[in-house]
Amino acid sequence: MTKMHSSCYAVCLLASMIVNILLMTQQYKVRNQLTWSQNAAAEAESVASISCSGNGRAYVDGLVVDGKPVCECNSCFQGPDCSQFITDCPADADSGDPLFLEPYWMRHAASSALLVAGWHRMSYTFSDNTSISQVLDQHIRTLHAAAKNAITDGKYIVFGAGSTQLLNAAVFALSSRNSSSRTRVVASTPYYPLYKKQTDYFETLHFEFGGDVSSLKNNSDALDIIEFVTSPNNPDGQLKKAVLRGPTVKAVYDHAYYWPHFTAIPSPADEDVMIFTISKLTGHAGSRFGWAVIKDKDVYEGMSAYISLAEMGLSRDTQLRALKLLKALLEDDGKEIFYFGYRRMMDRWKRLNQVISLSKHFSLQEISPQYCNYLDRVREPSPAYAWLKCEREEDTNCTKVLNAANIIGRNGRVFNAGNRRVRLSLLKRQGDFELLLYRLNELVQKEYDAHQAM
Amino acid sequence: MTKMHSSCYAVCLLASMIVNILLMTQQYKVRNQLTWSQNAAAEAESVASISCSGNGRAYVDGLVVDGKPVCECNSCFQGPDCSQFITDCPADADSGDPLFLEPYWMRHAASSALLVAGWHRMSYTFSDNTSISQVLDQHIRTLHAAAKNAITDGKYIVFGAGSTQLLNAAVFALSSRNSSSRTRVVASTPYYPLYKKQTDYFETLHFEFGGDVSSLKNNSDALDIIEFVTSPNNPDGQLKKAVLRGPTVKAVYDHAYYWPHFTAIPSPADEDVMIFTISKLTGHAGSRFGWAVIKDKDVYEGMSAYISLAEMGLSRDTQLRALKLLKALLEDDGKEIFYFGYRRMMDRWKRLNQVISLSKHFSLQEISPQYCNYLDRVREPSPAYAWLKCEREEDTNCTKVLNAANIIGRNGRVFNAGNRRVRLSLLKRQGDFELLLYRLNELVQKEYDAHQAM
Repeated sequence: MTKMHSSCYAVCLLASMIVNILLMTQQYKVRNQLTWSQNAAAEAESVASISCSGNGRAYVDGLVVDGKPVCECNSCFQGPDCSQFITDCPADADSGDPLFLEPYWMRHAASSALLVAGWHRMSYTFSDNTSISQVLDQHIRTLHAAAKNAITDGKYIVFGAGSTQLLNAAVFALSSRNSSSRTRVVASTPYYPLYKKQTDYFETLHFEFGGDVSSLKNNSDALDIIEFVTSPNNPDGQLKKAVLRGPTVKAVYDHAYYWPHFTAIPSPADEDVMIFTISKLTGHAGSRFGWAVIKDKDVYEGMSAYISLAEMGLSRDTQLRALKLLKALLEDDGKEIFYFGYRRMMDRWKRLNQVISLSKHFSLQEISPQYCNYLDRVREPSPAYAWLKCEREEDTNCTKVLNAANIIGRNGRVFNAGNRRVRLSLLKRQGDFELLLYRLNELVQKEYDAHQAM
Repeated sequence: MTKMHSSCYAVCLLASMIVNILLMTQQYKVRNQLTWSQNAAAEAESVASISCSGNGRAYVDGLVVDGKPVCECNSCFQGPDCSQFITDCPADADSGDPLFLEPYWMRHAASSALLVAGWHRMSYTFSDNTSISQVLDQHIRTLHAAAKNAITDGKYIVFGAGSTQLLNAAVFALSSRNSSSRTRVVASTPYYPLYKKQTDYFETLHFEFGGDVSSLKNNSDALDIIEFVTSPNNPDGQLKKAVLRGPTVKAVYDHAYYWPHFTAIPSPADEDVMIFTISKLTGHAGSRFGWAVIKDKDVYEGMSAYISLAEMGLSRDTQLRALKLLKALLEDDGKEIFYFGYRRMMDRWKRLNQVISLSKHFSLQEISPQYCNYLDRVREPSPAYAWLKCEREEDTNCTKVLNAANIIGRNGRVFNAGNRRVRLSLLKRQGDFELLLYRLNELVQKEYDAHQAM
């Protein structure tokens, strides 16, 4: 009996010791996998795990109180853990902050995480002596091929700090320095207000803002002209083509929204100067990364000169982040993000239409279903913005009408389109959209109640 | 005996099983520490471990061949593992690429590594609705207090894409929009060429480049003037003060090099507009991060407006990287990086002087030892650049004289100082400096040999 015990013990001990050795080897391996990067990774995970009730988020560069990063609450929430809803909080649909894409990146945490070494890319230039990452350039071409929204073959690519900087770079590169009169920068109404603001601010001896295209329709042969064409348009989501033609007219296509999220892609764009940004593609507005796809070498060199003189090339950190994000979304050729973006925006548009269609006081822009090259079928509209109109004669200032209902929109006047129009952003977090819809519903309900009472 | 065996086995088994449990718990912990960040961390370490013979480096955003990132070789090296020295490689001392600081970051790999989550700061704004990280702002103030090089109390801070962008923002903010004549932008010779290049390029109706300060000395009351004061100066390392005075003169202090690495700090700077950059502080030229310290609220708002209209605020990725770097170097109040920078630059300057002092054909600028507020003692010079002069009458183009000896410098003419001067960068990697010294030594040796032969 004791002998049996003894040999049983011996076998068990041997087995246990083998397990011990295996565990130690494995642990050595796991530990050894990471050395200098371990702390940074652990810090990021620790901050990400801070609970903000699903209504906010802590960040590694956020404020720290008592040694712990604090929650930064989404709009309309407050408290240390963002658990308190602020009653009477306005439905703020002013900004085009593309936060509807946040859930996509939460789902792709592993593929989109990025570790930057302290010594990463300290130099002014990459090893080919440029300030443009060739790998990122390649990924952008792959992206356009996947989205079927632009032809990049044989074209040049310039990086800038969001489309914002590239719009201005295009104006500098395309305005004539030899002409006796200044190049006019124009766009067709309603247009994105930055075109005017930026052109006015940076106004040189060589260009000035000319307002709506209509002012130049009879003049387009006599003057040097740059026409901004926003397609699909901000604010109204319509696909557009240049209005002016002629040997002295140059069109700059702002394609910030030319992605399956927001529009049908009738065909891959093939214009001379096209500007894109990750802001409305991946939702990373804060990263300030955009690119221009350019046919002509001189224009490419002109825009490159601008970026170089303005800031000696775009931050390598921004380029690195953009690369990581594109790599992550290209793992399935962009399928998930394009379908997610499309469905989310289409759903919002449908629900908004259901509410507004019950009203006689308000109307929305009409966008027709259209064939989409990406989906290879006719698809429903899914615009980034509602371009709301106050229909009642007395509602001359539509922004004020909405403000009275605790809704904040962007006044149509800043788009050169008068006070009867308001742009409402559909791009923000789901909670923001739900609140907007709730408030609009209340407004329409009041209209119905008032009608019933008559 | 068997009984003893048996109880011994039992004890051993128990002990072994306890170790088993401990190891398993520990392993669970280690494994559990990291989930979604693990791959990014492992990728970064794997790329960093690629051997490039100490003469190059692989990067996570570098080219990949056969599934493996390739080595990017330092100048004068080639081959798949950068092991081959390129004979007859020129000593390229043209660029101010501050790579002498790379070893500091290699030594501080753990504290300077940064993990960025895919959803990090997607919004246009921080939670306080600005595009400026308050935590980074705080770290910058702490940094200046530690370096004893600038007073920031009660002042405003604006971020920009390197000092490059902030120089232009200052010109826009400070030039008079109401005056009948344009504001003149000037600097005292020799001056950093970008002032002219950038001002010419962005020239508006409100400002133009005016060249050397001397052109305006008798006019400084009649005109609106912006004077760039680079202190210590690029190219010659001298501490400078504004030359022009008067109610219509505004000085912009470019303090890119006002760090213990490069100069004595006679006292903390307290000017109205001061511009700094991490490029020459941490060596991260590629990150494009700079800041302006501003006394006046209107100027602060003017420069903020520029950054906002130019690119809607500086990339959050760049701000995050800068924060991580500053956090790392502030762990010891900057002591190590300041002393490392100072000693490295002083050593180079001394060795360069030893070589050039043997020559009658060449001379260097003189920089006097001076009291330093940071070191609290008189200290030796340690400038970022040599401002070499060709002394022989026939050597009218000094750049060409150096080129003939396979040395590349920057022609004094671009600093408005004529062809007899050449700027040689002392900021690059140690290998670059050694090669420069070797080539200069050869040149001086030739001079000596020729003299002996006479």
